[in-house]
Amino acid sequence: MEGLVNCMKKANVSDAVIRRLPRYYRYLDVLHNKGTVRISSNSLGSKMGITASQIRQDLSCFGEFGQQGYGYNVGELRAEVGHILGVDNRHRIIVIGVGNLGRALMQNFRFMDSGFTLDAAFDISPDLIGTTIDGVQVLSMDSLENYIQEHPVDVAVLTVPRSVAQATADRLIAAGVRGFWNFTNVELSGKEEDVQFEDVHFADSLLTLSYHITRQQHS
Amino acid sequence: MEGLVNCMKKANVSDAVIRRLPRYYRYLDVLHNKGTVRISSNSLGSKMGITASQIRQDLSCFGEFGQQGYGYNVGELRAEVGHILGVDNRHRIIVIGVGNLGRALMQNFRFMDSGFTLDAAFDISPDLIGTTIDGVQVLSMDSLENYIQEHPVDVAVLTVPRSVAQATADRLIAAGVRGFWNFTNVELSGKEEDVQFEDVHFADSLLTLSYHITRQQHS
Repeated sequence: MEGLVNCMKKANVSDAVIRRLPRYYRYLDVLHNKGTVRISSNSLGSKMGITASQIRQDLSCFGEFGQQGYGYNVGELRAEVGHILGVDNRHRIIVIGVGNLGRALMQNFRFMDSGFTLDAAFDISPDLIGTTIDGVQVLSMDSLENYIQEHPVDVAVLTVPRSVAQATADRLIAAGVRGFWNFTNVELSGKEEDVQFEDVHFADSLLTLSYHITRQQHS
Repeated sequence: MEGLVNCMKKANVSDAVIRRLPRYYRYLDVLHNKGTVRISSNSLGSKMGITASQIRQDLSCFGEFGQQGYGYNVGELRAEVGHILGVDNRHRIIVIGVGNLGRALMQNFRFMDSGFTLDAAFDISPDLIGTTIDGVQVLSMDSLENYIQEHPVDVAVLTVPRSVAQATADRLIAAGVRGFWNFTNVELSGKEEDVQFEDVHFADSLLTLSYHITRQQHS
């Protein structure tokens, strides 16, 4: 009964639970790589700074995991949570805008670890078009629609300037892209109901830190 | 009584509430810049995708805001939430590691909008040391301790390679830095209880998107 508050139906899992899933995956991945075979919800919770009952409640949204008094099999739970997150779907992703941030993601972010294959990048700069960054070709924005017609694209990483963010999103949506990893700090909108925007707001994170250091300095 | 579940005492506000504060600030800032003077908790909630009662409950952790049937004064509430977040404290921040990501933050992130003053950046590359990026000097890592002794530093942005993340954090902690905005994807630790780490995990965000597009593609 524990999970009922946050997930009356599997289709209706709360945003807070969904946001915790990648964290579970991350911690389980670290444990798995360290060779840990079993873990109790208590010790997983204390590592993550949440309660054991929260973990049991969250996971109950998705099925039956672990055994009373025996804990979770780390490898199995990692695979299950990964499956729920879709890491085994080999989603295809492209980067739009090869400035410093786009380039940083292309060079340092491990798309594969999240189940994504980075297929191409797009820019308007003649200096960049035709170059290759970590094995990924930079193509002209002029060829965007043709490219998408010929290659499946699940997600576009938006690392373009703010001023062209919405127009670029509109163009990608018209071309059929339905997932956006949005670093532009612009609240994007799409008329199509099936378009998913995941916004990365760096300031939200820095302000959370600001809150904590402010409390500390004044305590 | 509404706020009691998430904040028995002001000192004990839940992490979920704290994480929503920057979002309130962001939405109120947009409204304020648009010239909106008043807003009800209902319409603020519908913009943010949360309930009006959640907003009232969250804010009640920090005092009395708004008037029954009259809504919130946008400018006042923005200022109050900003104050709670410490944006008026003029925290000092430095960037450690001027690779693509460090440079992207220096050039595009509006530190001022979050109440931070970016004072300096540090790197080990002779090509970068002595240069200036958007008015901010890049100094040698050799001069880090001396710099911190002479200038107050509240937060270090860690944009160094994974392999040197913990060692760099250790060095900064020893020099007296207590706040870390950590982009290295390494779970850092510090023995000192008063050190605050705010980790930016890009993968958590991409996996949340992966969850949503997976649900959609299979529905």
